[in-house]
Amino acid sequence: PAMACSPPEVSKFPTVRLTGFFQADTAWFHQSERNIAAVGGAEDGSDFRRARLAAVGNVWDNVAYSLEMDFGFPGRPSFMDVWVDMEDVIGDVNLRVGQFRQPIGMEGLTSVKELTFLERSLPFALIPFRQVGAVAYGTASDDLMTWAVSGFRFPTDVYGGSVGENGGYGTAARVTGLLVDREPGNVRFHVGGAYSFIDPSNDLLQYRSQPEVFVSETGGGVPAAVAVNTPFFVDTGIIDAEHTNLFGAELAASAGSFYAQSEYLVSVVDQIGGPTVALPGAYAYAGYFLTGEQRSYDKKNGVFGDVVPNCSVDKDGGIGAWELAVRYSYLDFNDANVQGGRLSDITAGVNWHWNPHTKFQLNYIHAMLDSPVNGDSDASIFAMRAHLDF
Amino acid sequence: PAMACSPPEVSKFPTVRLTGFFQADTAWFHQSERNIAAVGGAEDGSDFRRARLAAVGNVWDNVAYSLEMDFGFPGRPSFMDVWVDMEDVIGDVNLRVGQFRQPIGMEGLTSVKELTFLERSLPFALIPFRQVGAVAYGTASDDLMTWAVSGFRFPTDVYGGSVGENGGYGTAARVTGLLVDREPGNVRFHVGGAYSFIDPSNDLLQYRSQPEVFVSETGGGVPAAVAVNTPFFVDTGIIDAEHTNLFGAELAASAGSFYAQSEYLVSVVDQIGGPTVALPGAYAYAGYFLTGEQRSYDKKNGVFGDVVPNCSVDKDGGIGAWELAVRYSYLDFNDANVQGGRLSDITAGVNWHWNPHTKFQLNYIHAMLDSPVNGDSDASIFAMRAHLDF
Amino acid sequence: PAMACSPPEVSKFPTVRLTGFFQADTAWFHQSERNIAAVGGAEDGSDFRRARLAAVGNVWDNVAYSLEMDFGFPGRPSFMDVWVDMEDVIGDVNLRVGQFRQPIGMEGLTSVKELTFLERSLPFALIPFRQVGAVAYGTASDDLMTWAVSGFRFPTDVYGGSVGENGGYGTAARVTGLLVDREPGNVRFHVGGAYSFIDPSNDLLQYRSQPEVFVSETGGGVPAAVAVNTPFFVDTGIIDAEHTNLFGAELAASAGSFYAQSEYLVSVVDQIGGPTVALPGAYAYAGYFLTGEQRSYDKKNGVFGDVVPNCSVDKDGGIGAWELAVRYSYLDFNDANVQGGRLSDITAGVNWHWNPHTKFQLNYIHAMLDSPVNGDSDASIFAMRAHLDF
Repeated sequence: PAMACSPPEVSKFPTVRLTGFFQADTAWFHQSERNIAAVGGAEDGSDFRRARLAAVGNVWDNVAYSLEMDFGFPGRPSFMDVWVDMEDVIGDVNLRVGQFRQPIGMEGLTSVKELTFLERSLPFALIPFRQVGAVAYGTASDDLMTWAVSGFRFPTDVYGGSVGENGGYGTAARVTGLLVDREPGNVRFHVGGAYSFIDPSNDLLQYRSQPEVFVSETGGGVPAAVAVNTPFFVDTGIIDAEHTNLFGAELAASAGSFYAQSEYLVSVVDQIGGPTVALPGAYAYAGYFLTGEQRSYDKKNGVFGDVVPNCSVDKDGGIGAWELAVRYSYLDFNDANVQGGRLSDITAGVNWHWNPHTKFQLNYIHAMLDSPVNGDSDASIFAMRAHLDF
Repeated sequence: PAMACSPPEVSKFPTVRLTGFFQADTAWFHQSERNIAAVGGAEDGSDFRRARLAAVGNVWDNVAYSLEMDFGFPGRPSFMDVWVDMEDVIGDVNLRVGQFRQPIGMEGLTSVKELTFLERSLPFALIPFRQVGAVAYGTASDDLMTWAVSGFRFPTDVYGGSVGENGGYGTAARVTGLLVDREPGNVRFHVGGAYSFIDPSNDLLQYRSQPEVFVSETGGGVPAAVAVNTPFFVDTGIIDAEHTNLFGAELAASAGSFYAQSEYLVSVVDQIGGPTVALPGAYAYAGYFLTGEQRSYDKKNGVFGDVVPNCSVDKDGGIGAWELAVRYSYLDFNDANVQGGRLSDITAGVNWHWNPHTKFQLNYIHAMLDSPVNGDSDASIFAMRAHLDF
Repeated sequence: PAMACSPPEVSKFPTVRLTGFFQADTAWFHQSERNIAAVGGAEDGSDFRRARLAAVGNVWDNVAYSLEMDFGFPGRPSFMDVWVDMEDVIGDVNLRVGQFRQPIGMEGLTSVKELTFLERSLPFALIPFRQVGAVAYGTASDDLMTWAVSGFRFPTDVYGGSVGENGGYGTAARVTGLLVDREPGNVRFHVGGAYSFIDPSNDLLQYRSQPEVFVSETGGGVPAAVAVNTPFFVDTGIIDAEHTNLFGAELAASAGSFYAQSEYLVSVVDQIGGPTVALPGAYAYAGYFLTGEQRSYDKKNGVFGDVVPNCSVDKDGGIGAWELAVRYSYLDFNDANVQGGRLSDITAGVNWHWNPHTKFQLNYIHAMLDSPVNGDSDASIFAMRAHLDF
C-alpha cells in the first residue's frame, strides 16, 4: 500500500542540547535535647544538593529524548530523566519509555528548578517518583486538562535498575483540570487527582523523611562518631507489604503575584501478617512576589512553571525578583503496628531571583516531631541555597 | 630547514560534539530446577544496560579524540572510548593512544549501537576488548583491507587503570579483507583473522559469561537472599596463568537484505603449575530485513555498520524497518583442570527500527548448559530493549 | 525609583559550552630496598590521571558558571570547579559561590592543563585547594595586581560535601603583583603572598604526599597483596588540631623562552594536647622552549598561562613545541611529635606540545626520603603522559 514515508536523509537529526543545573546548600540545625535523643544529632554542613548534566533533543520529528545524570545525589551519578518520547503515537497520545517521574503528586511533578522551598513537602516521601516504565499521556479541552497513565517496575534503584521477585510492579494515573484560566491577572484554579497501585518487589516497602532539609558528606574522612547525613525524623522501618494503594488530591490557585498549592496523599498499605495501615500526609503553601512577578503555569504538565524576574540583576543594576513564601506540611507514620512517628513542619522562605537562571533561597524550618518512644520534640533549621541552571 | 608550519591561530579548534545513547532492558527468566541448582536463581528485572555520554571532536587538523563515559555499567561511570587519534603519523598509518577496543573480534569491534541482538555472542567473553594502550592502524587496497596492531596493559579496570606485577601487558593484531564488494545488490564477502598474546598482571586470568542477557540492581535495597545480578552460567574461576594466546577467525557476508556473520575464537592458556588448556567459542548468525533495507558495511573498521530504515516512523505514519535474526553460539570452558562449564545458546530476534536512531528489540534465548557438577540444564529467557542514540 | 532593568527576554541566555580534557599516564617505579621497607612497594602501571567534562557559560550578562566533573579521580566522578560567578557585584569586585580553588598557592591556581610537570610540586600537599565557599576577587593597577579573599568549609569531600562539628571553616587571601611586565621579550617578574587560617571540622588534620607521580587501579580485580595505589611517601597521620595558619610566598619570572617559578609554604599547626608544629615545603623550577615559544602569563589569575606552539604538528609536518624543565621540591613533616618524614624530589622533564591542545610529557623523578623509622632511602620514577584538552 502507498505509505507516508520519511526519506532516509538523516542530516537534520539527531539534535542535542547540553543542559543542567546545580544547587549548593548550607544548613544549620538546632535540635532540642529530646529531638537528639529521638533521631540522633544532625550536623551542620554544606553540600551540593543536586548537580546535573543532561543531553536532550530530538532524533526524529516525532521522537524526543532525555539522558540526565545527577552527580550530587547518592549513587553519584544517579539516573534521573532517561527516556525516549514518542509523540502522537495514536491520535494525540504520547508514549514515554524509560525512567521518569510517575504521574502522581503535583509537587513531585514540578521541576526541581522551580520549587518554592529548598525541598519538596513532607508527603513527597509517599510518592513513587522516578521509576522505570512506560507512560501514555496527553492533554485535552484546549490544554485545560492533562492526563497520564503509567506502568512501572518498583522499586527502581539510583541506577535505573529493578530486579526481584514476588511483585515489583506498579501503575499510576493522574488527571488535572484548570477550572479557571484567565490570563489577564494570572487568575487560575487547578484541581487534580491521582491514584497508584504498587506491588513492591520482594514484598518490602519503607517510607521515611528528613525534615525538609538535609546535607551530607559521603566522600569519606568523617570520624565514626559524627553523622555524615541528616537523620530521618520519621521512618516506618521495613514493612512486609503485599501491596499499597496510594491516593492523591491537588488544589492550586494563582491571582496576580500570589499563588498557593496544596496536596493530600495517603498510602493504604496491605501488610503481610498485619492489619491494613493508612499513612497520610498533606501540605499547603503560599507565595507572593514583592516585585510584581507572576507565577507561570505549565499546561502540558499541569503544574506551576518558572519565574522570570521583571527586572533581572545585571551589569547596570536591577533588583531581581523577591518572593516570600510560607508552608505547613505533615506526615503521619503512626498506625497500628507501624510506629514511624508523626512530623509537622512550618517553613518560611525568601527567594531572590537574580535572573531566570540564578536564585538564592533562604528557608527557616521549624520541625515538630511526635515520636512514639521519645514523645514530642522539635528542631529549628536555617538553610540557604545558591541555584544556577543552564 | 624550511618546515611546513601551522600558524598559531587557534580559532578553528577544538571542535566538540556531544553524543551518546541509552538502552533500557527488561528480561524474564525461566530456569529448569537443575539450572537453578547449577548457577543460582536469575531474577526478572529491568535496568539500563548502557547509558553513555561522550565528547568527540578534533583539536587540530590531524588530531581527533573521544572522551566517553558509561553510566549504566558497573563502575558508574565507567571509562569507554577515551583516546587521542593522530592521523597519518607515518604515511597512511594512524596512531591511537588511550583506552580503546583492542583489534581482535569482529563482533567486539562492531558498535554496540549496531548489534543485531541484545548482547554480543558468548565467545565475546574471550577477547580483551577495551584496554589502555596504543594501536597503529589503517586500510589498504582501496579500503578493501583493514589492519591494526596494538600493545596494551592487561587487565584494565573500569576506570582505565592497570597496576600490578609479573606482567600486565598484551598485544593484538587483526587483518580483514573484502573478497567480494559489489555495491549494487549489497553483495559482500568478508574474511578476517586476529591474534592476541596476553601476559596478565599478577598472573591471574578469568573468563566467565552470562547467557547473552543480564539485568542488575546494584543501587541497594535488595534483600540478601535475592540475586542482584543475573548469574554467570559459565566461569573458569581464577586461573594461575603465565600467559595466553588468543586466536580468532571471521567470516561475514551480505546479499541484498540478507546478512550473516560468524566467528571462531580460542584462548590457549599456559597455566602455572598446570597443563596448557584450550578454551574455544564460536557463533554464527543471520539477519534479514522484511522491509527491504540492506545492512551497511564499515570499511574503515572492517565490521558491519548502521541500519537506515527506508521508511522511518514519523508524524505522518511510516512502518520503520523490520528485521528478523537467528543465532547459535557456544563457549566451552571445560579442559583438564579447568571445569567452567559448556554453554550453548540459540537466539531468535526481532528488531523494529523506528528511525536511524531509535529501535526496539525482542530476543528469545534458549540457553543449554553442561555443568561439570550439575550436568545438563537449560533456561529460557525473554528480553526486550528500547534503544536511542544521538 | 527609576532603575536599570533587564527586560525579561531570555533568548540570549543561557549559553553553554562543553569542554574537558584527559591525561593518560604510565609510570615505572624503581625503589631501593629500604624505600620499600619505609613506604611499601609501588607497582608499575597505567591509568587516567584526570578525565573531565565541564559545562561552562553564562546565564546572564553578569553571571557565569562552571559545572565540572572528573571521572578519573577517586570519587568517580568527583566535583571540580562547580561555581556561579557574579561579576562586578560592587564596583569591580567579583563574587564566586560554590566549589573552587581557594586563593593560596601559585602552582595550585595554575590550570592543570598548563602544568610544566606531570604533578604539582610536593608543597601542594599543604594547600586547601578546592573547597566549598565564597570568594571575592579582582584585579588592580591595570591588571598588574590580583587579589582574592575567601571563606570556606573545610574539609570538603570529593562530592563537594562538608559536615561535622567543632569547626569546619577556613579563610584564605592572596595578593600578587607584576613588578616587571615588558611584552617585547616576554620579560616578567611576579611576586605573591598568601595566608590561610583553617579550623578543621572535628579538629582533625592530615597532610600526606605521593612522590609527584602516582597511578592506581581501584576498579577491583587486584589481589590483596598487590598495592592498588602508589604509596604516600610522607604522611603526618591524623593530627588533633585546633586550627592551622598557612603562609605562602611566590616568586616567578620569564624572559623570552625561559621561565621560572618558586614557592615557599608552611603550615603552623596548633595541636590539641601537643606543641605547635611547623610543616614547611618549597619548590623551584625552570623551563625553556627549544623551539622558541614563550610562556604566557594569565593576568586575571596571577599565574602562568598556556603554551601555543609556533609550529604545530599537522598533516603537512611541523615540529611542535619542545620544552625542557627541571625542578627541586621538598616537604618536611618532621617536627616534635609529628614525624611524617622528609621528602626531596629532583625532576627532569621533556614536553612535546603537538598543538595547543595535545602534548606528550616525560618525567624522570628522583625521590629522596628521610623516614623517621627507616632512615634515608630513595626511588627513581620514570613516567609519561598523553594529554588532550578541548
